[in-house]
Amino acid sequence: MPSTKAIWARSPYLAVPHHENMSSTSVNSVASANSEYFDNTTPASDEYSKRISETSTPAEDGIIETDFASIPSSTLKDQLQLPLPKFKHEPWIHSLTPMFMGIDIQLPEKDAHTSSITFGFSIHDGYYSTDFAIKTRNISKDTDPSEYPLLITERILLEIKTYSSEHLFKFVAVAFPQRVQKFCPRLCARLWLELDVLPFVFKDAALSGGHDGDESEDSVGAAPSCDELADSLARKIVMFFGPKGLPRISIGYRNKVEVDNGGLIHMVDLREYQASCSPETWECMMRLVHELKITRICGRNGVRIGFFSATPQGGGVALMRHALIRLFKLLDIQATWYVPKPNPSVFRITKNNHNIIQGVADPSLRLTDPQKEHFSKWIESNFERYWATGPLDSEKPPGIDIAVMDDPQVVALIPKAKAAGIKVIYRSHIEVRSDLIKQKGSPQEGVWDYLWDVGIKDAEVFISHPVRGFVPDVVDREKVGLMGAATDWLDGLNKDLSRWDTFYYMGEFKKQCEEVKANKLVYPMRPYICQIARFDPSKGIPDVLESYKKLREMMDYELPLRKIPQLVIAGHGAIDDPDGMIVYDETIKMIATEDYDTISSDIIIMRLGPSDQLLNCILSNATVVLQLSHREGFEVKVSEAIHKGKPMIAYRAGGIQLQVEDTRNGYLCEVGDTQTVADRMYELMMDGDKYKELSDYAKTSVSDEVHTVGNALAWLYMFNELSHNREVKPNGRFVYDMMRESIGVRWKDTENRFPRNF
Amino acid sequence: MPSTKAIWARSPYLAVPHHENMSSTSVNSVASANSEYFDNTTPASDEYSKRISETSTPAEDGIIETDFASIPSSTLKDQLQLPLPKFKHEPWIHSLTPMFMGIDIQLPEKDAHTSSITFGFSIHDGYYSTDFAIKTRNISKDTDPSEYPLLITERILLEIKTYSSEHLFKFVAVAFPQRVQKFCPRLCARLWLELDVLPFVFKDAALSGGHDGDESEDSVGAAPSCDELADSLARKIVMFFGPKGLPRISIGYRNKVEVDNGGLIHMVDLREYQASCSPETWECMMRLVHELKITRICGRNGVRIGFFSATPQGGGVALMRHALIRLFKLLDIQATWYVPKPNPSVFRITKNNHNIIQGVADPSLRLTDPQKEHFSKWIESNFERYWATGPLDSEKPPGIDIAVMDDPQVVALIPKAKAAGIKVIYRSHIEVRSDLIKQKGSPQEGVWDYLWDVGIKDAEVFISHPVRGFVPDVVDREKVGLMGAATDWLDGLNKDLSRWDTFYYMGEFKKQCEEVKANKLVYPMRPYICQIARFDPSKGIPDVLESYKKLREMMDYELPLRKIPQLVIAGHGAIDDPDGMIVYDETIKMIATEDYDTISSDIIIMRLGPSDQLLNCILSNATVVLQLSHREGFEVKVSEAIHKGKPMIAYRAGGIQLQVEDTRNGYLCEVGDTQTVADRMYELMMDGDKYKELSDYAKTSVSDEVHTVGNALAWLYMFNELSHNREVKPNGRFVYDMMRESIGVRWKDTENRFPRNF
Repeated sequence: MPSTKAIWARSPYLAVPHHENMSSTSVNSVASANSEYFDNTTPASDEYSKRISETSTPAEDGIIETDFASIPSSTLKDQLQLPLPKFKHEPWIHSLTPMFMGIDIQLPEKDAHTSSITFGFSIHDGYYSTDFAIKTRNISKDTDPSEYPLLITERILLEIKTYSSEHLFKFVAVAFPQRVQKFCPRLCARLWLELDVLPFVFKDAALSGGHDGDESEDSVGAAPSCDELADSLARKIVMFFGPKGLPRISIGYRNKVEVDNGGLIHMVDLREYQASCSPETWECMMRLVHELKITRICGRNGVRIGFFSATPQGGGVALMRHALIRLFKLLDIQATWYVPKPNPSVFRITKNNHNIIQGVADPSLRLTDPQKEHFSKWIESNFERYWATGPLDSEKPPGIDIAVMDDPQVVALIPKAKAAGIKVIYRSHIEVRSDLIKQKGSPQEGVWDYLWDVGIKDAEVFISHPVRGFVPDVVDREKVGLMGAATDWLDGLNKDLSRWDTFYYMGEFKKQCEEVKANKLVYPMRPYICQIARFDPSKGIPDVLESYKKLREMMDYELPLRKIPQLVIAGHGAIDDPDGMIVYDETIKMIATEDYDTISSDIIIMRLGPSDQLLNCILSNATVVLQLSHREGFEVKVSEAIHKGKPMIAYRAGGIQLQVEDTRNGYLCEVGDTQTVADRMYELMMDGDKYKELSDYAKTSVSDEVHTVGNALAWLYMFNELSHNREVKPNGRFVYDMMRESIGVRWKDTENRFPRNF
Repeated sequence: MPSTKAIWARSPYLAVPHHENMSSTSVNSVASANSEYFDNTTPASDEYSKRISETSTPAEDGIIETDFASIPSSTLKDQLQLPLPKFKHEPWIHSLTPMFMGIDIQLPEKDAHTSSITFGFSIHDGYYSTDFAIKTRNISKDTDPSEYPLLITERILLEIKTYSSEHLFKFVAVAFPQRVQKFCPRLCARLWLELDVLPFVFKDAALSGGHDGDESEDSVGAAPSCDELADSLARKIVMFFGPKGLPRISIGYRNKVEVDNGGLIHMVDLREYQASCSPETWECMMRLVHELKITRICGRNGVRIGFFSATPQGGGVALMRHALIRLFKLLDIQATWYVPKPNPSVFRITKNNHNIIQGVADPSLRLTDPQKEHFSKWIESNFERYWATGPLDSEKPPGIDIAVMDDPQVVALIPKAKAAGIKVIYRSHIEVRSDLIKQKGSPQEGVWDYLWDVGIKDAEVFISHPVRGFVPDVVDREKVGLMGAATDWLDGLNKDLSRWDTFYYMGEFKKQCEEVKANKLVYPMRPYICQIARFDPSKGIPDVLESYKKLREMMDYELPLRKIPQLVIAGHGAIDDPDGMIVYDETIKMIATEDYDTISSDIIIMRLGPSDQLLNCILSNATVVLQLSHREGFEVKVSEAIHKGKPMIAYRAGGIQLQVEDTRNGYLCEVGDTQTVADRMYELMMDGDKYKELSDYAKTSVSDEVHTVGNALAWLYMFNELSHNREVKPNGRFVYDMMRESIGVRWKDTENRFPRNF
């Protein structure tokens, strides 16, 4: 299977051709590569006076050419470089400063020969514009115009890399006008995948551009110059970042979730998706998409889908929906995603429902009648306010043909959708304790009966995690289809991070550790083992600690310190999760006991914010990854780690058994058997050949079903069937299998597939 | 003089009445204070199950009452508390998490008796809404309705303080609807001055409120509930904070600077300004404001002012303008502030002009003809685009009566304003080297002649720093008026910070130090001395180092370590200042030499972002403050430190001589005499009585002229004269003196006044 890894190269610092290597020891070679690669770039100089006097030289064609002026601090560089005794040739950098860039380019006419291309670059630190340059790239007469897009793309990447390495910066986001993106179709994906830069593409019409681009009225005067527009773009993108430095979520008309800020962020294109899955998967995709587009409904071409879920961010459903809608948009599938207006007291009720139905709430907790009333009033008012005259209209032809209800919060919308003639798929992503629901008078029965009555019973299809105990008996077995959760190999959680970006995110992680006075991760001086999971009683955190203690008992008399791994236990800190802090506190207290005396300072326990790349970075640099959950539906983190080539040691619990192939890409141990976990860790740490064997297999062993592309296929199959008024009756089967059968693309031996009988 | 300090009390942690003391050792006492102070608050409980089962109890009147649910981590608290050997009763907290809050209140009818008031609180961490509560405050029958505003205000402050101390949070901003602000007129100022919380006030019309408040269209359904609106407000204010966690600047129609986000942020009211200056100053203010409001121009009442300067943020002019416009708005003075659209290449040119005219640029650097053309085209296009049909309209009656041109960048607007019949004041805030301008053929002459010709010559008044060498000979002496720079005792730079807020900002400072691997500030374990100034060759940083070295030679054989101060050299890191990094690097290199071997780890050298309170915190906790500039116009930082009661040791240079009263609020030493500086530091560190004497005097010794209120008076005087078609001919005098004379309010002995003959 062609892994996504094939589409971009790894290099020690950044994925660039060899002669442009960006290691910080070779800034000068970058500068010379720079001048070698382009015709008229003056070599970088650190002399203040020279820079100043070079300012504003009018080029031949009247453009005032100006180099960057901000001089990097040499002492700061020294301070931030960690001397790695073993790796003197590739120093480790402690932290990089996050920055933003605006770019404008005076593009040549398409297919016309030109003698030069002018670039405007503007640098912004989140407070102010701090530097800019206008640079001209002379073009020799022999250059074919078809090469311009590549020349421009390479130049932009090189400028970002050079400036980054000279100043110890990490560019977080870059903005440019849509005409640049259209001219250079590979630019966005390369920025995202090679440099981990979020590309913002602004429609040219939106760029009349005032001070912060907000005023679009009185645009007299000439079009903005290259540097002016670049500067305006840099200021613009800063507005899309929140106080914690992450991009904001955007919600539009009728509470539609504007994925990627309504298309402003453009990360990848279809060719990257194609390269990220098997040819068979892609073939299915092309066929299904074609069918859906030509399907005629109500005199129109194409099927319209509406996803409804509780929140636009924070949690697995939201992560998956962003990825799915992103792909659907590129495929030209008409899919929108709506969320209700948040109501804190309703969310408290639904959070309790969630905990009850999973069997983890206090046994005395129940769904009361006033709560039911409050809950139902809320969804009713959301319906009236946002959707009754829109996607779920029962008077006019409704705005969508098929609705996916993704959360118990929105099940009361199912009868509304049905009344409007819309087909409904209900996806149950909760690890439902169907055994407890069976008990008459149990709190679980109370919650479930309510949800079932107000809506779930009316859905055409009931989608569940591939764990049979998760489906209550009352659900008609015919309607039940299985689908695992999905992740996305191209998004921030999974894409390869360069060494430079690792400096940044590892620096961020260590900064967060320091902020709460957690123990210090000394990576890269020592390796580490990690478990990434919420601080939840079901995640087996005490087992992780015990296994690690047993590992240390084996290693500490045997190995030098530098070879002994630390342990990282980290997870999204869902601060609204009442359990979270309790489990976190218990964990901290556990390592403060005598048992852990000699090793406690090597255990790093951290609650993290929702930065995809940060979690990615922690996972990617671990040597071994653990997942010792006692109970689990389908844990995408397991597949993510395996996909990164991390041998996974997990308990034989729930859907994890589908994800880990014992002795091939990791080990499955019996729940509670911490000694075996320790033995397996020991083996993997000590036996390089064994490690490599498992790791190599792991990288290519993950099924496309767990990637957005495979996940999308299962959805598209159901949409296609329902739109042709064919019933979807999975009868407890995997929807993915039905999809393959219906298209007639057989499973090949080369493909990865989760086991179907477990 | 009634100092601003009089209007809020200091308490060890937060300024609260004694029985509500917030020290983290007394969380329980807060909770009990809480339950004692309010009728029906259940005491705080840490038990998860209890909290959960308490969820959503319907109160008598049908409101579902809900307590906060998020449980603070006890281990995190332990980790973050520094054991202070000497101060066991008041532990030091390393860092606080910045948070946001939305509040809504179901207000009673004005003047009507009520039995309860309902509050909705929503907590947001910058990513997500993390907690909320609906609380009812029962009111006894005896309570007079006129007490409600105070009851509500106290309750809000108490909730913020309680939640802060339980969770180790720092609330950065709080939002509520305008009706709450109108009902509780003291709420904003108390939030800002007592809790350092930025209050955002949203007009009720803007609160139809969808997911993030952006959609204001299809508002069917009922008004949002208390918790829903609080939640919406919390999400709303997060959008006003940029990626570095500071509030964004807002620019409106015609590039008008929307100070305090167009009034959304409401920090203080006139009573705070009144309390912050002398009765004489306030009397002048009331009289001038009255005159200006009744002045009839073109058939209208009131004079309209337009300020024009280069940038809306970053630098002294912008700081002063924000403060001035804020005060003018409260006074109902019609003043607006415009900035041009930023153009990076023009700003590079004007930055060079700036450096040339101050005599600090490379001698070969000159203003060239193409640069002049580029510069003038830019201001022309800004004029056409934003102001030709607006404030500077010469066809219709113009939108303003008087223009203040505050930067050389905008002087070409002067003839345009004059053509529209507008009076113009030019303020020259640059330390102009008039001696160099005199030299024929010098770069200084080149730049100055250009600026003079394109506009400055046409201004009615020429305002300069009170340093005579700063005014070129060509300027008509009659037109020259003197005004120092100003700062604001009520803004983030100067207001008193509570102990809790000191934890936060000191934590931020230490975090920033750690990020660049700077030396560690060990405060509060040891005292420190500081100089806050840009990394600029004129700021005498080598003198600071040398003085400190000499101090240490005196102390190190004599005193225990805990009594020996560290040294902090910190400044706004204007990253676009090419000199900045050079001087910073040189400083770092200097302390790396043998001379500093034993003390270098005690010297903290930091470039800081533009956080007012952070700088405030560093200055406020220093023992002694230095300002060893060799050349200075008027340094507000000097007056700020003195106002905080910090004895100031400075060189006898430029305008600083006006600011420091030798031997009374500090010491003036001869330029270069580092031994005397060291002796003075030694004296102040060792002689507690002397220190107290200088410090006590310092606190009340700063003239109102340096505060926004005094500064505003000088402006208002000129506006008043010009609007009555009287000529303003200062003839080199202080404008402030002319103001006092014209109003006839004599200087009293109790008032502070800068010396006029120096």
